[in-house]
Amino acid sequence: MPLAAIIGGGVIGSAWAARFLLHGWHVNFYDPAQYSDRVLHGVLDKARRWVPEIYDALPEEGSLTLCASIADAVAGAEWVQESTPERLDIKLPVLKEIQASCLERAIVASSTSGFMPTELQTGAVRPEQILVAHPYNPVYLLPIVECVPSAIVDPATVDRAETILSDIGMKPITLGAEIPAHVGDRLLEAVWREALWLIKDGVATTEQIDDIMTHGFGLRWAQKGLFETYRTAGGEAGMKHFLEQFGPCLQWPWTKLTDVPDLDEPLINRIVEQSDLQAGGRSVSELENQRDANLVAILKALRQQDSAAGAFLNRLDAARD
Amino acid sequence: MPLAAIIGGGVIGSAWAARFLLHGWHVNFYDPAQYSDRVLHGVLDKARRWVPEIYDALPEEGSLTLCASIADAVAGAEWVQESTPERLDIKLPVLKEIQASCLERAIVASSTSGFMPTELQTGAVRPEQILVAHPYNPVYLLPIVECVPSAIVDPATVDRAETILSDIGMKPITLGAEIPAHVGDRLLEAVWREALWLIKDGVATTEQIDDIMTHGFGLRWAQKGLFETYRTAGGEAGMKHFLEQFGPCLQWPWTKLTDVPDLDEPLINRIVEQSDLQAGGRSVSELENQRDANLVAILKALRQQDSAAGAFLNRLDAARD
Repeated sequence: MPLAAIIGGGVIGSAWAARFLLHGWHVNFYDPAQYSDRVLHGVLDKARRWVPEIYDALPEEGSLTLCASIADAVAGAEWVQESTPERLDIKLPVLKEIQASCLERAIVASSTSGFMPTELQTGAVRPEQILVAHPYNPVYLLPIVECVPSAIVDPATVDRAETILSDIGMKPITLGAEIPAHVGDRLLEAVWREALWLIKDGVATTEQIDDIMTHGFGLRWAQKGLFETYRTAGGEAGMKHFLEQFGPCLQWPWTKLTDVPDLDEPLINRIVEQSDLQAGGRSVSELENQRDANLVAILKALRQQDSAAGAFLNRLDAARD
Repeated sequence: MPLAAIIGGGVIGSAWAARFLLHGWHVNFYDPAQYSDRVLHGVLDKARRWVPEIYDALPEEGSLTLCASIADAVAGAEWVQESTPERLDIKLPVLKEIQASCLERAIVASSTSGFMPTELQTGAVRPEQILVAHPYNPVYLLPIVECVPSAIVDPATVDRAETILSDIGMKPITLGAEIPAHVGDRLLEAVWREALWLIKDGVATTEQIDDIMTHGFGLRWAQKGLFETYRTAGGEAGMKHFLEQFGPCLQWPWTKLTDVPDLDEPLINRIVEQSDLQAGGRSVSELENQRDANLVAILKALRQQDSAAGAFLNRLDAARD
């Protein structure tokens, strides 16, 4: 079995440990400051309870070793995952210590949600060994991981990173460029910012905003993303027609306060090309059927659960009995 | 059976018709310009196929009447739903014609995604009869509807609107203030804007952005919204601690280009109070268990479907066989 080293033992580091262990890796675990037995075992318990539910079978669980130092933890590891607090003055010394003892071929990945790999590589002995592998909470359940190399990281290293992340049940998305906060957190930040305005101005409460998501576009995005949702909604006229209609919206009053990209012909064309590729020949009618079947499956599944949308449907049915 | 009038027969109007019919209302249907038998019956077919899947039982379907004029359509209707194109120069004359023939007690609701009720009430004979009921596509499946009265709409009218919307299986959220584009579309616009930047700058493709949503935060938002997700992730330290940590992020580089609300003490306190109320005494551990059970249920349901996240898990299992 291969070996991973987890450096940083908060909720994110502990969930990385759970992911590697449950997918058959051995794990060396070290926390420089905030180690909590309760956090680690709380996360492991949850992961052991839930992860087997979504797979037909899992490999034999790896063994977990609590280590007394970074040097001990990283020795012999193929993968080192750094999940220390989101401060460069903490991360850079930790990365330096990791590189002093880890294999030259090891991949040293950071869970950072904000920093770019170039920042993390500053002053490193082998900067080309460091990249970003940014997961989403709960890390043991959500498959997504943003893989962000800088220009100096060898494509073969990126390939190997993708292979290893896939091996532990993750869906790696390797970004085309490094940027602060990567992709997902920028989208989340945009929503968060707008939500803060809405609350500040008394337009909606946290519960109302959450309900609008869980009974509305959240159900969409559990099964189709932003672009495929719009492609589907746009109908037979196609993505280009949809975008050209949508374009003027960006000039509407509610966007005037912000810096807005010009939805010009080149950008429209780029999105259309990418969206065509993504559709892989599926017609709008096929996309609609997928969407509806998925929404129904999710809603039916959520009715068996303690969930907002499910409870809503159950209440409605009960009221009609 | 009560009667609803649907004015405007595109995808949205047709889906409103489907919703009223399948929940036991009679429907008068009129389109001033763009009537398409194909659109109406395409939507009705889909709704009849899928809506019964998510309910134990539905009332007897109402009858559908295609009408030759607005006057014919609105006569005797308790609810009039206007879903014409998103232009005031179209909507205002249509609303005027509706009010010339509809019951004084009828609720005249607009599906507008951008205009405020005050704008729609301009020059109306009974402005207090008009409000916004903004649904989300696909309207026959997604329960959410934003209900937006202006200050002159009687609270009793709002209550009646909420009752009727609930009767047709919707979850009405009545906003605290009118604002262009209401709530959900402002959040969607924020994501859209950021996504456009990411594509323009070559950071990610449409497919990558969609994957990051469907394998990541979209799965979260199908079962917990933005605030409950953060409350859950924030852990035992609570929402206030989480917000105080989060505050500085709004000053990080990736937000500098935009107009940012100051996450000051009053705004923090408002969010904390609303979030406490929303939690209704549930502990973080309870919220976590809900979240995990819901995510597993959705992922399991999606594995039986033609979906990105489900296909991903199925491929992974197949590769391990």
